[in-house]
Amino acid sequence: MLKDKGEQRTSLASLGEFGLIDHLTANFKITQSSTVKGIGDDAAVLDFESKKVVVSTDLLVEGVHFDLSYMPLKHLGYKAVVVNVSDIYAMNAKATQVTISIAVSNRFPLEALEELYAGIQLAAKMYNVDVIGGDTTSSTKGLLISVTAIGEIEEEKIAYRNGAKENDLLVVTGDIGGAFLGLKVLQREKTVFEVNPNNQPDLDMYSYIIERQLKPEARKDIPPLLHDLDVKPTSMIDISDGLSSEIMHLCKQSDVGCNLYEDKIPLDPQVISTCEEFNLDSTMVALSGGEDYELLFTISQEDFPKIKANPNLTVIGHMTQESEGIHLITRANTKIPLQAQGWNAMDQ
Amino acid sequence: MLKDKGEQRTSLASLGEFGLIDHLTANFKITQSSTVKGIGDDAAVLDFESKKVVVSTDLLVEGVHFDLSYMPLKHLGYKAVVVNVSDIYAMNAKATQVTISIAVSNRFPLEALEELYAGIQLAAKMYNVDVIGGDTTSSTKGLLISVTAIGEIEEEKIAYRNGAKENDLLVVTGDIGGAFLGLKVLQREKTVFEVNPNNQPDLDMYSYIIERQLKPEARKDIPPLLHDLDVKPTSMIDISDGLSSEIMHLCKQSDVGCNLYEDKIPLDPQVISTCEEFNLDSTMVALSGGEDYELLFTISQEDFPKIKANPNLTVIGHMTQESEGIHLITRANTKIPLQAQGWNAMDQ
Repeated sequence: MLKDKGEQRTSLASLGEFGLIDHLTANFKITQSSTVKGIGDDAAVLDFESKKVVVSTDLLVEGVHFDLSYMPLKHLGYKAVVVNVSDIYAMNAKATQVTISIAVSNRFPLEALEELYAGIQLAAKMYNVDVIGGDTTSSTKGLLISVTAIGEIEEEKIAYRNGAKENDLLVVTGDIGGAFLGLKVLQREKTVFEVNPNNQPDLDMYSYIIERQLKPEARKDIPPLLHDLDVKPTSMIDISDGLSSEIMHLCKQSDVGCNLYEDKIPLDPQVISTCEEFNLDSTMVALSGGEDYELLFTISQEDFPKIKANPNLTVIGHMTQESEGIHLITRANTKIPLQAQGWNAMDQ
Repeated sequence: MLKDKGEQRTSLASLGEFGLIDHLTANFKITQSSTVKGIGDDAAVLDFESKKVVVSTDLLVEGVHFDLSYMPLKHLGYKAVVVNVSDIYAMNAKATQVTISIAVSNRFPLEALEELYAGIQLAAKMYNVDVIGGDTTSSTKGLLISVTAIGEIEEEKIAYRNGAKENDLLVVTGDIGGAFLGLKVLQREKTVFEVNPNNQPDLDMYSYIIERQLKPEARKDIPPLLHDLDVKPTSMIDISDGLSSEIMHLCKQSDVGCNLYEDKIPLDPQVISTCEEFNLDSTMVALSGGEDYELLFTISQEDFPKIKANPNLTVIGHMTQESEGIHLITRANTKIPLQAQGWNAMDQ
C-alpha cells in the first residue's frame, strides 16, 4: 500500500508531536452537542446531561489485526472507528465521541498518516462522532491504533448481554460470513501477486465480500430503528468474533440455552458462491468467520410482529432453558451442540 | 526485569483472549458510584448525573516511553494509570474510571502480565478509579499500553489551559526535576551493569529521584485542596514535558506572557546534589526535564492569601501582557526568553 511512485514523503521526525497532532486533526469539526471541549487541553470535556455514558475500547495491531499489503490506510482508519462504534450500538446506544491514539514507526511518511486520518475523519462524519482526543507516538515496529468510543443512552433503553429469557427470539441484522470470505479472497490474491506481480486480479465478482472486509459498516441504524419499532432488545451483542461465539456469550451471561436454525442464517449470494469456490461450508463460515459487525439480539416473542416485516432483521433461533444447551438445528433437522468455533463434529 | 530464576512461566498462547482478560481483571472491584457496569459487556455504562465528563488518553510504548531493563512491570502498570489520571486532575476534576488496553509479544509469560496488572490494580486503588474496560491483544514486538482516563467535575470548577489573565500568579505543586534525574541515574547504572554485571549499585542517596521516575504519583490531592481553599485556578496543566514547555502552552492558549523567577522554582535537595554530581544546571533540569506529573496553574492575585501558607504550593512567577513575551528572571536578575526546551542561550 505504501507504494512510492514519487509521491511526496515528509518524514515524521520533521514535525514534533504537537505539530503532528495539530496537523492531522486540523480539519476535524465538533458536531455533537455533548462535546463541550474537544482536542487541545489536558482532557476533553463532555456533557451528557441526564443520559448514561457508554465506553468501549479496542486495539488494532499491524500484523495481527490488519495487513497493509491489502488494507489501504484510509480504509484502515475508517475501520478503526467502525469496529469501536459497533460496540456502542451493541448497547442500543448512540455513539457520540471517539479518541484515537496511534503508535507508528518512522517508516511511515506524514502522507501515510494523512491517509489514515482521512479515513478516520470520513468515519467520524458517517457515524456522527467527534474525535475529541488522542495521542501520537513513535513505535519501534509497525502501526498500532487504539480507539476508545463513547456514547449516550437513556437508562431504560440499555441492552446488556445478560437479559435474554427462555423463549425469546434470537435476531441478527444484515447478513454474515462476508468479511471472513473477503479476507480469504484478499489473502489468495496476495499470494498470487507475490508469485507473479504482473497478474491483474479481477475482483468484481467478490466486490461485496471484499468491501465487508476492507470497509465494514457498523449498524448505526439499528438502535433508532428498534426505538421506532418500539422494541427493546432483552440482550444484545455485536458480531465481531463469529455468530457462534457471540451466541455463546449471550447464553452464558443470560443463563439460557439456544436453538439456532441453520436454514434461517442470512447469507449473501456472494457468500454462498465464494464458499463453493473455496470448498467451504457456508454455515461454518457464518458461525466462525467474524468481523461482520452486525448486531445479534434477543426480543420477547410478543415483539415479533413489530420486526417481522423488516428486511434488516432475521429471526434465526430462540432461547431455551439453560439445561437444554446451545444447539444448531441443521437443514436435515439434526441437533448439533454449538462450540465457540462453529460446532463440535465429534458430538454428532 | 524478566529474570528467569525458575519462576513459573505460563505461555499466553495457553489462554485465549477472553481467558486472559478474565484472569487479569478477576480481582478488580467496582468502587465508584458513577460506574453502573464495568468489564464484561460490549461497553461499560457510566452515570455522571448532572456532572461534566472529562476524558484523556495516552499511549506508552516499550523502547520509547519505558525500558523494562530498569522499570519493573508492576511499577510500569502503576505509572500507566498515574500519567493518565494526572491529565484529569489537570482539569481540576476527580478521576473516576480508566480503560486499559495492552498489546504484548509472546516473549511475555502470563506471570509478567500479572505483575503489570498488580501495579494497575494498586494504582486504581490509590487513585480511586474503576478499571471498566480494555483490550488485550498480541503484538509483533514488545509491550504497548493504552490508557483512557475518565473523570467528573461540576461545570463551574473546570480549569482549562486558556483562562490565565495578566497579573495572575503562576503556581506549581510539589517540586520538579526529580523524575528526569532519576532516569539519568538509572541509565548510568544500566551502563555500569552492562560492563560489569557483578556490580551492586548503592542507590540509597538517589531514592527520592528514582522513585519520582519509577513510581511517580499524580496530584489527586490538589483539586479537593483548591476546593477547600476556595480557589478556582484560572488555568491549569500537568507537567509531563517540563516546566518550560507547559508554561508556554498556558501562555499560548491564554494569550498572555509570563515572568518566571529562577530562585522560586522548588527543587528537592537530592535534585540539587545530583545535578552537581552530573554537572547539570538544576534550573535547566527543572525547565526541560519532564515526567514530574506535578500541576501548574494560575490564580488571581486576590487568591494569594488563601494559598501562601500551603507547603504543597509555590508561586514561581506571574503572567504579563502577551506582548511582553515569556521570560526567565535569573538569580542574577537577568531576563532570558524561555523556549520549549529550557531557554535560548543565544538570546541572552
